[in-house]
Amino acid sequence: MKYQIKDYLRHHGFVGQTITVQAWVRTKRESKSVSFIALNDGSTLNNLQAVVDAGVVAEDILKLVTTGSCIAATGELIESQGTGQSVELKVTALEVYGTADPDAYPLQPKRHSLEFLREIAHLRPRTNTFSAIFRVRHTLGYAVHKYFNDNGFFYWNSPIITGSDAEGAGEMFRVTTLDPKNPPLKEDGSVDYKEDFFARETNLTVSGQLEGELAALALGKIYTFGPTFRAENSNTTRHLAEFWMIEPEMAFFDLIDNMDLAEDFVKYVIRYAVENCGDDLAFLEKRLLEEEKNKPQNERSPMPLLEKLQFVLDNDFERVTYTQAIEVLLQSKPHKEKKFQYPVEWGIDLQSEHERYLVEKHFKKPVILTHYPRAIKAFYMKEETEQVNEKGPTVRAMDVLFPGIGEIIGGSQREDNLDKLVARMKEVGIEPESMDWFLDTRRFGSAPHSGFGLGFERLILFVTGMGNIRDVIPFPRFPKSAEF
Amino acid sequence: MKYQIKDYLRHHGFVGQTITVQAWVRTKRESKSVSFIALNDGSTLNNLQAVVDAGVVAEDILKLVTTGSCIAATGELIESQGTGQSVELKVTALEVYGTADPDAYPLQPKRHSLEFLREIAHLRPRTNTFSAIFRVRHTLGYAVHKYFNDNGFFYWNSPIITGSDAEGAGEMFRVTTLDPKNPPLKEDGSVDYKEDFFARETNLTVSGQLEGELAALALGKIYTFGPTFRAENSNTTRHLAEFWMIEPEMAFFDLIDNMDLAEDFVKYVIRYAVENCGDDLAFLEKRLLEEEKNKPQNERSPMPLLEKLQFVLDNDFERVTYTQAIEVLLQSKPHKEKKFQYPVEWGIDLQSEHERYLVEKHFKKPVILTHYPRAIKAFYMKEETEQVNEKGPTVRAMDVLFPGIGEIIGGSQREDNLDKLVARMKEVGIEPESMDWFLDTRRFGSAPHSGFGLGFERLILFVTGMGNIRDVIPFPRFPKSAEF
Repeated sequence: MKYQIKDYLRHHGFVGQTITVQAWVRTKRESKSVSFIALNDGSTLNNLQAVVDAGVVAEDILKLVTTGSCIAATGELIESQGTGQSVELKVTALEVYGTADPDAYPLQPKRHSLEFLREIAHLRPRTNTFSAIFRVRHTLGYAVHKYFNDNGFFYWNSPIITGSDAEGAGEMFRVTTLDPKNPPLKEDGSVDYKEDFFARETNLTVSGQLEGELAALALGKIYTFGPTFRAENSNTTRHLAEFWMIEPEMAFFDLIDNMDLAEDFVKYVIRYAVENCGDDLAFLEKRLLEEEKNKPQNERSPMPLLEKLQFVLDNDFERVTYTQAIEVLLQSKPHKEKKFQYPVEWGIDLQSEHERYLVEKHFKKPVILTHYPRAIKAFYMKEETEQVNEKGPTVRAMDVLFPGIGEIIGGSQREDNLDKLVARMKEVGIEPESMDWFLDTRRFGSAPHSGFGLGFERLILFVTGMGNIRDVIPFPRFPKSAEF
Repeated sequence: MKYQIKDYLRHHGFVGQTITVQAWVRTKRESKSVSFIALNDGSTLNNLQAVVDAGVVAEDILKLVTTGSCIAATGELIESQGTGQSVELKVTALEVYGTADPDAYPLQPKRHSLEFLREIAHLRPRTNTFSAIFRVRHTLGYAVHKYFNDNGFFYWNSPIITGSDAEGAGEMFRVTTLDPKNPPLKEDGSVDYKEDFFARETNLTVSGQLEGELAALALGKIYTFGPTFRAENSNTTRHLAEFWMIEPEMAFFDLIDNMDLAEDFVKYVIRYAVENCGDDLAFLEKRLLEEEKNKPQNERSPMPLLEKLQFVLDNDFERVTYTQAIEVLLQSKPHKEKKFQYPVEWGIDLQSEHERYLVEKHFKKPVILTHYPRAIKAFYMKEETEQVNEKGPTVRAMDVLFPGIGEIIGGSQREDNLDKLVARMKEVGIEPESMDWFLDTRRFGSAPHSGFGLGFERLILFVTGMGNIRDVIPFPRFPKSAEF
C-alpha cells in the first residue's frame, strides 16, 4: 500500500528519501524566493508543508496551485527548518491533477458556518472539521465491530425492508414499486399490495431488534449495526430520518448483565477513539471552545471535550431506579421552585429537562435508569416480579443517559414467557398472530435474554462535541431534505 | 464476560471446575442408568456433552429436556470418558428455561431440506448448517472492516434513501409516506412529490459509489459496507432485492492499483475465514460433498471446499483484457462446436457461460478481466487512451470472476476529467445538471481515482460452498417475499 501523509509525519525513517506526495492544497503562501504549500491527503488532520524554491516549478504551473487544487509533489523529505512541523518536502517537481478556480471553489481558507457547510455536504469532508468528524466516526465504527468480535458476538444483518409493522416504534417509510398515481385496487377500493414487488405492504425497518432476538436465541450473542428509519416530522438537532443503530442481543443475559455490557461497551469505544483519534479530538475540542466563546457561561460545556471523555471513562455510571429518580426530582430545587416545564410524578415519561437535571446537576455523571413503569415502555420488556413497586408494575428496562445528549442507550431484559408476552401484546393492541414467527422464539427453547440499542450518531455527537446530529453523518436525511 | 461452550472446549484449564452451561439441547440419548445430552449455545459448531446419571435429575424435569429446549446444566467439567470429545459435563443440577414440544418443534434431529428451512428462516439459525453459515458471515464481515482499517481506509456511510436516480444501475424501490391510494397531484395530473416526506421523489440506493467518490476525494481512501437494493424481478439463485455491498473508493489509485487492492483484499478476507472458521468450514465442506453425492460427476464441485479456498489463496489471479478473452473464446472448443448459447464477438456483454468457460475451463483460476468496450460499461469509467484497441474504445474497467460464482467484483478507474465525463453523460442520456454535486468533484481538485464493488453475499456463497444466495443472508428479500 502506498504511503500517505500520516506515515511521513509519523515515521522518522522517511527523512532523506525522495518521495511523491499526492494531496490537496489547503493553502499557499508565497514570497519572491519561495512558496510554502500546505498539503493534506485526508489521512490525517495534519498538513505536510511543501517548500518550492523560486524557479523550480514553472510560473504557469505554480499559478494553478490554489486552495482546493490537487497536486503531486515530488522531492526530498527533510527535517523542517521552521517551527510547527517536524518534516517538510523540498519540492523538485510538481504536477497539477485538478485545479480549483478561486472564484468558484466555495471552500476558501476562511471561517465557514456549519449551516453553510451543510448546504455543500458533498464538499464539507474537505474541511478540517468534517474530515476530523468522519475519521472519528470511522474509528468509533471500527471499535464497535472490534469490541463485539473480541467478545464473542456475531454480526447479524436484520432486514432493512420489512413486512413486519408490529413494533410500533414510530412512523414508517413505505417501500413500493406500485404505480404512484394509479395503484392497483382491490374490489373494496383499498390498494392491492398483492401486486406490489413483495406481494405485501413493506416498510423500512425502525429497529433490527426483533430479528436480532431470533438470532440471539440461536447463536447466543449477536449485534446489528445498520441503518434504521423513522418517518417522524422532527426538525431537531437530535433526530434524523435515517440513522445507524447498534443493537446487541444476548441469550442468558439478565438486566444486570445488560447494564454491565452497555457500560463496558460504551467506555471501550470512547476509549478507543481517545487513543486513536488524538489529533482530531484535540482539534474538535479547540473548535468547541471557539464556538462557545461568545456564549453565556451557563450555556457552555462544563468541561473541555477530552476532559469530558476522560471523566466518562474514569467514573462508574450511576445506577438508579426510575422510582428513585422520581424521588430525586421531587426533592429538587427546580421542582420546588416550579422551574420544570413538565410536572413530576411517578408514571410520567421523563422529559429532557428531567434527564438533564439528573445527569448534569444531581449525579454529575452518566446515569443508568432502570425499572420504568410498564405502562410507558414497549410490550417486549420483561415485567419485574422481584422488585415490586407499590405505585404500579415496572419492567426490567434500562436507559443510559449522557450529559448533553440525554438517552444514548435504551434496552431491557426481554419477556421470555410466552403467555405473558401474548397477554401484553393483546393489552397494547398487537395481534399476536401477526408476529407468530417472533413468538416461536418463546414457544421453542425460550431463554432469559436481553439487549439494547445505541444510536450511532448520538454517540458521535457526544465524542466529537458537535451540537447538531446533521453534522456527524455524511448526508443527513430529515423532513424536506434528501440531497445528494 | 461469561464463558461459553467454545471456551470450555478450547481451554483445558476448566477441567475439574464446577460450571453452569446455558444452552439448547441438540439431542438426548437415554439408557436406564444415564442420559447423554448434546448441548449447543451457538458459540461454536461443536456440542458439549452433558452426562446425567440416573436419579440426579427428577424424572419429570428430565422429560422436558428434548431437542430444541433450553436448559442450564450445572456440574463438574471432566475429561471425557467416551471418544469424539475431550471434555464432558457431569451434571449435578439442571434447570429448564424453555421447552420445545416434540410434536410442534419443526427442527427435530433429522435431515431437513434447504427449501424447508428457508420457510422457517426465523428458526434455521438453530441448525448446524445455518449457524455455521452465519458465523462465517460474521467472520468475513469482521475481516472486511479489519482489512480496511488496518490499511488506512475510513468507513463511510453513503445514504440509503437517495434523491439521486442518475446511475441507472437498475430498477429502484420508491420510498414514500404519501397516501398510497390518493396521492396529492399537481395541476398537470402528475404526483406532487413536494408533498412527500423529503419534498421530492426518493428511492433506495442501488450503490453507494457516487457518494463514496465524494469522500475519497477528501479523505483519500474510504469504503462503504451497507445494504443496497434492486427492484429487479430476478428469481435466481444469484440475486436478492436487498443485499450488502462493500465499495472501496481510493484517490490516487489507477487501474493497476485497483486490481492489486481487489486481489489482496479478497484473499485477505478468505484467508481470515479459513484461519478463524476451521470447524464451520470443515462442516460445510462435508455438507457440500453429501449434497453432491448423487449428482453426475460434471455437476459436482471440482475440488472440496477448503482445497478450493486454498487454491484461490495460493494462485495469482489471471489478468486478461476483454479483447484477449474474446480471442480465447473464439478459439475455444465450445465456440467452434457451437455449444455456447450466445454468440461470441468483440463488443458483447459476456454471458455467464463465457465467464465460466474462461475461469473454470481455460484459466482454471480467478480471472480479472480489464478494458471492456466503453459501450457496455457505466458512464463514470475512465476511457483508456494508452492501450488503444482497433475494434473500438475501451474503458479502464476490471471485473473479477470467480469459479462457480461468476462476477464477484466490478470496478474501474473513474473518469476524472470534467469535460469527458460531461460528454459521456450526455451520450448516455444523463442530464449533467441533475448531478451537479457529483461533477463538483471533477470541477474542484479532481484526482485520478478508482474503486470497486463486491457483493457480500456472493463472497459468502463462495466461501461457504452454498448454492443459493437466499441461504447466506438471514432474511432474504426477493420478488413476492419479505417474510419476518
